[in-house]
Amino acid sequence: MTIVTLTTDFGTGDYACGLLHGVIWNIYPEAKIIDLSHDVPRHDVLAGALLLARSCFYFSPGSVHVAVVDPGVGTSRRPVAAKMGNQYFVGPDNGVFSLVAHKALQANQPVSFYHLNNPAYWLPSVSNIFHGRDIFSPAAAHLAAGVPIDQMGSPISDPIHLDIPSPEVEDWGWVGQVIHIDHFGNLATNIHKDLLAGMGPVRIAVKDQVINRLSYAFGNSSSGELTALIDSAGALSICVANGSAAELLHVNVGERIEIYPVNND
Amino acid sequence: MTIVTLTTDFGTGDYACGLLHGVIWNIYPEAKIIDLSHDVPRHDVLAGALLLARSCFYFSPGSVHVAVVDPGVGTSRRPVAAKMGNQYFVGPDNGVFSLVAHKALQANQPVSFYHLNNPAYWLPSVSNIFHGRDIFSPAAAHLAAGVPIDQMGSPISDPIHLDIPSPEVEDWGWVGQVIHIDHFGNLATNIHKDLLAGMGPVRIAVKDQVINRLSYAFGNSSSGELTALIDSAGALSICVANGSAAELLHVNVGERIEIYPVNND
Amino acid sequence: MTIVTLTTDFGTGDYACGLLHGVIWNIYPEAKIIDLSHDVPRHDVLAGALLLARSCFYFSPGSVHVAVVDPGVGTSRRPVAAKMGNQYFVGPDNGVFSLVAHKALQANQPVSFYHLNNPAYWLPSVSNIFHGRDIFSPAAAHLAAGVPIDQMGSPISDPIHLDIPSPEVEDWGWVGQVIHIDHFGNLATNIHKDLLAGMGPVRIAVKDQVINRLSYAFGNSSSGELTALIDSAGALSICVANGSAAELLHVNVGERIEIYPVNND
Repeated sequence: MTIVTLTTDFGTGDYACGLLHGVIWNIYPEAKIIDLSHDVPRHDVLAGALLLARSCFYFSPGSVHVAVVDPGVGTSRRPVAAKMGNQYFVGPDNGVFSLVAHKALQANQPVSFYHLNNPAYWLPSVSNIFHGRDIFSPAAAHLAAGVPIDQMGSPISDPIHLDIPSPEVEDWGWVGQVIHIDHFGNLATNIHKDLLAGMGPVRIAVKDQVINRLSYAFGNSSSGELTALIDSAGALSICVANGSAAELLHVNVGERIEIYPVNND
Repeated sequence: MTIVTLTTDFGTGDYACGLLHGVIWNIYPEAKIIDLSHDVPRHDVLAGALLLARSCFYFSPGSVHVAVVDPGVGTSRRPVAAKMGNQYFVGPDNGVFSLVAHKALQANQPVSFYHLNNPAYWLPSVSNIFHGRDIFSPAAAHLAAGVPIDQMGSPISDPIHLDIPSPEVEDWGWVGQVIHIDHFGNLATNIHKDLLAGMGPVRIAVKDQVINRLSYAFGNSSSGELTALIDSAGALSICVANGSAAELLHVNVGERIEIYPVNND
Repeated sequence: MTIVTLTTDFGTGDYACGLLHGVIWNIYPEAKIIDLSHDVPRHDVLAGALLLARSCFYFSPGSVHVAVVDPGVGTSRRPVAAKMGNQYFVGPDNGVFSLVAHKALQANQPVSFYHLNNPAYWLPSVSNIFHGRDIFSPAAAHLAAGVPIDQMGSPISDPIHLDIPSPEVEDWGWVGQVIHIDHFGNLATNIHKDLLAGMGPVRIAVKDQVINRLSYAFGNSSSGELTALIDSAGALSICVANGSAAELLHVNVGERIEIYPVNND
């Protein structure tokens, strides 16, 4: 078996996401297809990039991840395939894979990109506005079926990069930001647990609120209380037990987060 | 393998769509099931009919398409199965398959309908208000497993038809209308590319806006600009690059679209 | 084949529900996975419990049902597995399985619960806030693969119970309540058809409306008319043909329903 995951901003009200399944199974009926999400916010390449980077390395070696999130579908960006670590990726060259690449490189995993310019692995007729159906799904199915990635097209060395802001050091501590808000209103940040591990006890400030310590889990907090914890992806997250931090604080992606070491004198 | 697709207005908050998978796999564990959409607007048979007609012929020969969209569930309309082209269909006789039939007949494909009146292919106990579980899913599973369609019930020659408005010719050009609005706010119309191909260069008017040409893809437009292009189903679509035409123009399904040939003098 | 169903409040905008598929297939690639629903209202354990109780016994013997709905994820409640009738269950010990247990006991089916305290069946590294990924999915995959449930952990005799209100008898009839509102705005109640069967003809009152009889199906009602019928789960449901009873009556879960026997004098 080979797993093929799908990540798109298509929504579920139309046939588009189901059609990708059909195209993949037409080419490779043994594929085990997983809808990672079809509800990436429309045109939000960074949200798709984060979703992939936080989940792709949990899948079995050789899994193929299709991403179709574009700032504008039908633009002239290249279609690409990539191998990063032991996972494969297929989608537009618009940065949607750049956070995975960053993670792979940090872990000393190999990263290689290819321009999907071999029409032998497309559908016979390619529309200008549905590359998910006509190029990406067929290429993913052929990869899952065992076609070597370097037969799909020419190697490229300049895939598009998205810049995700890094936390910045200040005299008094660190400044990070909210990079994702999930279904429960939890605020994922760009502050990794390794950074916090080096700081000892901390206070965390967001908007006009201060959180005095890192918690172990929601279950240690009173209902409605603002809590800072390390989320399942290893990043600092601001949460409310039985509630939504995003609604409580009225914050959006991009909100500033300040980390202060606690003076132990 | 045989593919079984599901198209319903059940939403995804309840167990209903998952239960269809369970019933199908109880009867035919080899089925490869695809959720085409469970978010058809409630009771909107025309939306379901369009979704099927635009997608069903992409699936492999012998695929079975279950549709459960009813103006009112539990009404006394007949349950039907159909073979159109090389695809099978199971659902209510309320017009949900009539746009597929129209397309099949235009392509000189065979079309045959059957009344699902043989209880051997239903669940043992049939409720009046969940035919999806009790009649349609079991019939689809048996079809996918290879039971001949003419064993499922009696042939019928008068399936219900939905009228989809055709574009109308005027002295000065054509009048069409918006028949579907997708997740991105793109306006699909009833104007097929073949009609446009015969007209040469055109101008397109919708509400108080005029679009001066057909474009090749979103990527050729400025962000926010109103664009007319041929969508992936071969129909004229009014779109906004990186935006929603439906929101920009405040239009709904049914909105009038005017096509003017451009005077090349 | 073994079926594994997933019921969560994760929503579909994130990778969480897809990741459960990946974890299960890593351990047991033959699993046939069904997304029962990922749109249970956030933190609503009773809604998840109802969804499972109304659907689980339709699945083939040996199916495994994973439920991840918590009032607050990462709390210290026990992770549990259960066997009830011929179905298996994996999730938090917070009452989400108690309505299934009630149904199984009523049908004289065996019910046994186990504390999932054998880490051999977890992922190697367990986070405090994603038990769905780290404990429940792996345990479900091992159960589906044939590991005996009593190897997963210690038997327990005190699983948490949710109280679902029973209908109450009065001098003049019965008082029940709305326990679930579905996608179509139908009001499911805690009044079972067996109770009604013993009463003969009835009138049903909800808010300031009176419904004079039980109907056979929506199809017998005029569009927009308030209707009382027995739903596909065997319970009294208040509906509006081609409309939403919840919107028409402005009611929520918990609304009082009165049942009056009709005087046949």
